[in-house]
Amino acid sequence: MTFLPQPHAGCFDGPLHRFAVRAYFEDTDLSGVVYHANYLRWFERARSDMVRLIGIDQRGAQEAGEGSYAVSDLAIRYLAPARLDDAVVIETRAQDVGAASCRLLQKAFRQDAADTMTLLAEAQVRVGFVGPDGRPKRQPAAWRAAFAALVPSSTEPA
Amino acid sequence: MTFLPQPHAGCFDGPLHRFAVRAYFEDTDLSGVVYHANYLRWFERARSDMVRLIGIDQRGAQEAGEGSYAVSDLAIRYLAPARLDDAVVIETRAQDVGAASCRLLQKAFRQDAADTMTLLAEAQVRVGFVGPDGRPKRQPAAWRAAFAALVPSSTEPA
Amino acid sequence: MTFLPQPHAGCFDGPLHRFAVRAYFEDTDLSGVVYHANYLRWFERARSDMVRLIGIDQRGAQEAGEGSYAVSDLAIRYLAPARLDDAVVIETRAQDVGAASCRLLQKAFRQDAADTMTLLAEAQVRVGFVGPDGRPKRQPAAWRAAFAALVPSSTEPA
Amino acid sequence: MTFLPQPHAGCFDGPLHRFAVRAYFEDTDLSGVVYHANYLRWFERARSDMVRLIGIDQRGAQEAGEGSYAVSDLAIRYLAPARLDDAVVIETRAQDVGAASCRLLQKAFRQDAADTMTLLAEAQVRVGFVGPDGRPKRQPAAWRAAFAALVPSSTEPA
Repeated sequence: MTFLPQPHAGCFDGPLHRFAVRAYFEDTDLSGVVYHANYLRWFERARSDMVRLIGIDQRGAQEAGEGSYAVSDLAIRYLAPARLDDAVVIETRAQDVGAASCRLLQKAFRQDAADTMTLLAEAQVRVGFVGPDGRPKRQPAAWRAAFAALVPSSTEPA
Repeated sequence: MTFLPQPHAGCFDGPLHRFAVRAYFEDTDLSGVVYHANYLRWFERARSDMVRLIGIDQRGAQEAGEGSYAVSDLAIRYLAPARLDDAVVIETRAQDVGAASCRLLQKAFRQDAADTMTLLAEAQVRVGFVGPDGRPKRQPAAWRAAFAALVPSSTEPA
Repeated sequence: MTFLPQPHAGCFDGPLHRFAVRAYFEDTDLSGVVYHANYLRWFERARSDMVRLIGIDQRGAQEAGEGSYAVSDLAIRYLAPARLDDAVVIETRAQDVGAASCRLLQKAFRQDAADTMTLLAEAQVRVGFVGPDGRPKRQPAAWRAAFAALVPSSTEPA
Repeated sequence: MTFLPQPHAGCFDGPLHRFAVRAYFEDTDLSGVVYHANYLRWFERARSDMVRLIGIDQRGAQEAGEGSYAVSDLAIRYLAPARLDDAVVIETRAQDVGAASCRLLQKAFRQDAADTMTLLAEAQVRVGFVGPDGRPKRQPAAWRAAFAALVPSSTEPA
């Protein structure tokens, strides 16, 4: 019997999801830091991990021809660079969920040696559910419910 | 003597820069359309082509240890999907230029058969000049001047 | 009427296909040169352009559920690095075509100022036709014929 | 005190290194499976993790201007596709180490539910040490020694 390593899985701290990535050669560009578009790949990995953990089966929905989430808009600010071998934590918070879309806040932090965290980038992301024809449609009820459980209630004091 | 094809170069229509890309397998994901982060790669190609055409030598500045442009913030909306083999035109307009940064508006259009254009995505992008240490610094005076020539004057009526 | 730039298209010199790419930031890594895996993306663009020029409609076959080409094996040697802004020509030769697969030789050359060409990388690539279930199947007869027209006859002296 | 997830780290089983990745949207293409070039990114992550575990500091060597490893040649066979959400294990074995280069055998397996492993791809990879000028040079003695400890001795029975 051989021990097999498992792919990284994130975890929840209440409704806050954390996911870790490391910066590899593929992520950098000749300026020596992580290429700006690659943060979007990291954020997508974190979102995919988050939805997997709450029971959403994106591959099943895709293969059944129901559809998948697609980013409809995204605003990102870059505050500090990540470099090769940096350990980076992606924090994701669901902010709002509707019939066809979800809004999330995502932040990338570098873990520094002294256990301090440096904010590298933060993004507002809206994902919408789209059918195989590329048109927006209602997301599955169970998916919406799973997301809603992560959104802070607006009727309660913060 | 052999004819060698040259890499695509964009062109200016007044201050508006146009650059064409085609959607290849590498650009798509399993949902059948171009992966959202890859628009950022297309937009970066278009900006790099634009600055090359106005005489900015990014590689020379990089090799001389002066620095390079880096995206500091970006907001993008996705309006329609691009699919394999689609011909896409990226339009770039310089909107504002400062001591250390430039602001641009970029749009991706699909060229349809009937010569109509479908807007796929549009982005507001700010790029800042950063030194090899990753800190913002003044951009070279010649670069700023080259960009300024593309920015509509704020003293004239629109 | 506006002039719209068209995406780069390669060309044939007899059976030899040439396609040009430029090295952008996205292609490089922190060592300052093009990341090794990105040559495979360039080679795929060149193959896709080649098959498009000989009348093979990969998107149509994909959308009709027939299948698509997939790389089954590939051997690549890296001889010299490409750097930002380099103009690179990809040469592709069909070497052999069978019922379900094609074998190609691809080379990447850097175009230097003095019209000399420096070989950067060369690859032997086999692509097989696979159905939507991922299994190899016979390629469409018209595709095979189109490829066969590019393969030097084995019955004639070299 | 907050628990922070750490990026995935591989592990050794004797001289055999194992590293896990998951297939995300970014890895796939419109054919529904992982894009062939992305296996090279996975293999590079695994090699970078392996050398990090044996004490090789690639970032330090890069920042000190000493140089870095670069792939000099690679031969890969694709045997079965990986799909979204698949858990994949990369196995890496050092096969040979010389003054300026190392030869490795890498395999990607899909972990299936029943604890069976399906071989997806295998690659022979040679990496050489190159200076900032892009030329091959002797690798640091400590790096060579660290690699040599992983290579099965040719003088002993297998």
